[in-house]
Amino acid sequence: MPASDFTSDEYTARIAKTRSAMAARGIDTLIVADPSNMAWLTGYDGWSFYVPQAVILPATGSPIWWGRTQDRPGAAQTTWLDADHLLDWPEEHVQHPDHHPYDTLVTHLRDRDLTRAIGVEMDNYYYSAAAHQVLLTAFGQDQIHDATGVVNWQRAVKSDTELAMMRKAGQLSAHMHTTLRQGFRAGRPKHELVAEVQAAGVAGLPGLAGDYAAIAPIAPSGREASASHITWNDRPLTAGEATYFEISGCYHRYHCPISRTLYLGDPPADIRRAEEAILIAIHDTLAAAKPGATCEQVAACVYDSFAKAGYIKGNRTGYPIGLSYPPDWGERTMSLRPGDTTVLEENMTFHLMPGLWTADWGVAITESFVITPSGGEPLADIPRDIHVVPP
Amino acid sequence: MPASDFTSDEYTARIAKTRSAMAARGIDTLIVADPSNMAWLTGYDGWSFYVPQAVILPATGSPIWWGRTQDRPGAAQTTWLDADHLLDWPEEHVQHPDHHPYDTLVTHLRDRDLTRAIGVEMDNYYYSAAAHQVLLTAFGQDQIHDATGVVNWQRAVKSDTELAMMRKAGQLSAHMHTTLRQGFRAGRPKHELVAEVQAAGVAGLPGLAGDYAAIAPIAPSGREASASHITWNDRPLTAGEATYFEISGCYHRYHCPISRTLYLGDPPADIRRAEEAILIAIHDTLAAAKPGATCEQVAACVYDSFAKAGYIKGNRTGYPIGLSYPPDWGERTMSLRPGDTTVLEENMTFHLMPGLWTADWGVAITESFVITPSGGEPLADIPRDIHVVPP
Repeated sequence: MPASDFTSDEYTARIAKTRSAMAARGIDTLIVADPSNMAWLTGYDGWSFYVPQAVILPATGSPIWWGRTQDRPGAAQTTWLDADHLLDWPEEHVQHPDHHPYDTLVTHLRDRDLTRAIGVEMDNYYYSAAAHQVLLTAFGQDQIHDATGVVNWQRAVKSDTELAMMRKAGQLSAHMHTTLRQGFRAGRPKHELVAEVQAAGVAGLPGLAGDYAAIAPIAPSGREASASHITWNDRPLTAGEATYFEISGCYHRYHCPISRTLYLGDPPADIRRAEEAILIAIHDTLAAAKPGATCEQVAACVYDSFAKAGYIKGNRTGYPIGLSYPPDWGERTMSLRPGDTTVLEENMTFHLMPGLWTADWGVAITESFVITPSGGEPLADIPRDIHVVPP
Repeated sequence: MPASDFTSDEYTARIAKTRSAMAARGIDTLIVADPSNMAWLTGYDGWSFYVPQAVILPATGSPIWWGRTQDRPGAAQTTWLDADHLLDWPEEHVQHPDHHPYDTLVTHLRDRDLTRAIGVEMDNYYYSAAAHQVLLTAFGQDQIHDATGVVNWQRAVKSDTELAMMRKAGQLSAHMHTTLRQGFRAGRPKHELVAEVQAAGVAGLPGLAGDYAAIAPIAPSGREASASHITWNDRPLTAGEATYFEISGCYHRYHCPISRTLYLGDPPADIRRAEEAILIAIHDTLAAAKPGATCEQVAACVYDSFAKAGYIKGNRTGYPIGLSYPPDWGERTMSLRPGDTTVLEENMTFHLMPGLWTADWGVAITESFVITPSGGEPLADIPRDIHVVPP
């Protein structure tokens, strides 16, 4: 997601929104370690999040990129920041037992007098308990505030440019699912099919190149699919088994995850019943997903449809999506589930996940959609029914 | 990496080694949140690490898998643990603002009287500052010890079974590089080539299926390659530019990363000089990498070769590899660099990274190898020279 994908006005607006949220929480300086949030604020892109890095957003002035020396040229290439706002920590601190890169961050913060009312993303993959301890020791508990999700929440309503990118991701997702349906046949080792589908997502379509998705293809078959996060293996596709593929095209780090279920042979009655419940759930949810409705109201469409079919769905049924890096393409803010009373706004985007997992099989048919005044509008056009192939 | 890849004796040995390390540090109960460590101890496999999960290793008795309810069937499928040792936290805690899955872990630990001398992986992607705070509040600072890397260090010396799997990963890496050389030509949009190379790694070879690598393909061209972690884009391959591909085959979660550089046209003298320095560095390092040598002694071969060629390499030049999950295929223990006096042992495995990045270009030619009494033995067989293609 190079910074050049968006206008400088868009970045200005993103920073202003984030600063309002900081002010409301009494945060003067926000340390943003989530790579998705870093990219959204500055454009920074690179597979460098396996070492400490952050965007520092003070109350005024330019944001600052901070990372490993070796990644500074990447920040110069991908962000809109000027060279004075690219700070680094020395290579010898990489995964070193005796000192931590955050020691250097402390020095940078002191140099700039950014030592009070500091917000950190305490519940994030890329901000560790060790990093937190360095900041606590340097600045004291009173100056460190939990700011988990502060930037994520600002990302919820998408701009027109972002929506255009998510629709491109949706075209890539559709292309992947077309490749999947064409290649799905009995006896085929699953990893071969996964290779084809993933390649379709990256090779993309004319004028539309794919990026790596934030989650690897999830593709369990038969009883494997009683578990919800099994990736793939080399077992041949087998008659009498449902396989679901949870996959996403990715365009400049924007995602459009879509699951579909395929079956070799005649699906049994319980799987057909689940399919029908899911299709009704999707239909009803999309109809209800208008600005002003709440997350739990929309989610109720899914739980109701399952209950009518005699199934209980125990887990949440959707979450916001957009710009993301591994290991999750969700935005980790709202959830479509009971108790979440967040009011939906126009141009919020969700992955609706009415999957059903039993002890013997799993069926997942999902949609990614945008909230519009006339309801949820799918971001990709892919047939929803279970794709049935003769064994 | 299903548990069935290894004998129960191998798992018993892994746990015994880990318990010795725990005892040496005064740790009674180890909470292992790193998915690579979880897999190494129990076989657990699944893309579920985007929510809190762990293996709990008490001083005696079976390890315990702990994760989200929805992932418990995956633990039953992939680990060797019995059903009594698969504990879960309720679905409604998924990414919920008001309660944390670690609250449930506290209850589980109290129920089993595992509340003292608890080790945690403080500097890990999958153990957050928020998780740490829950444990600190529950058990007190005195009962929580930093155990970052404790399991990682036990993984350093590979078993014969592990080495066989890494050699299979090496065959996949070689197949990917063959595909790369065959597909590399002027004018080709890079994402198309990446799609082919990645598909080769997953489709694999007869009897040899590929898994997803812990790092997406790194593949910068020309000036982009002055940055070391740029992935790819849709720009056509261009005459007069070096492109390096840092990629890895993955077999049942074991890796064999290998970088190669390709050039369209005649490489200029400075790039040829870097190539020669790198090839000498690899040759000398492999000769020196015997049991008894230290990390820094072996690394000196690289720094010396660069210095003779008039280049300064500022970063570390290698790290241990093996079983891994995103976002890193390194084991995060030793480093091949000055100051690391760890003594090498037979059957340790490293990714030797004598890459060189200047302001205008980058060249990376790397090898993954195993320490043997006769020196470092490459885990894959791939021509090392810069692959030159007429423009």
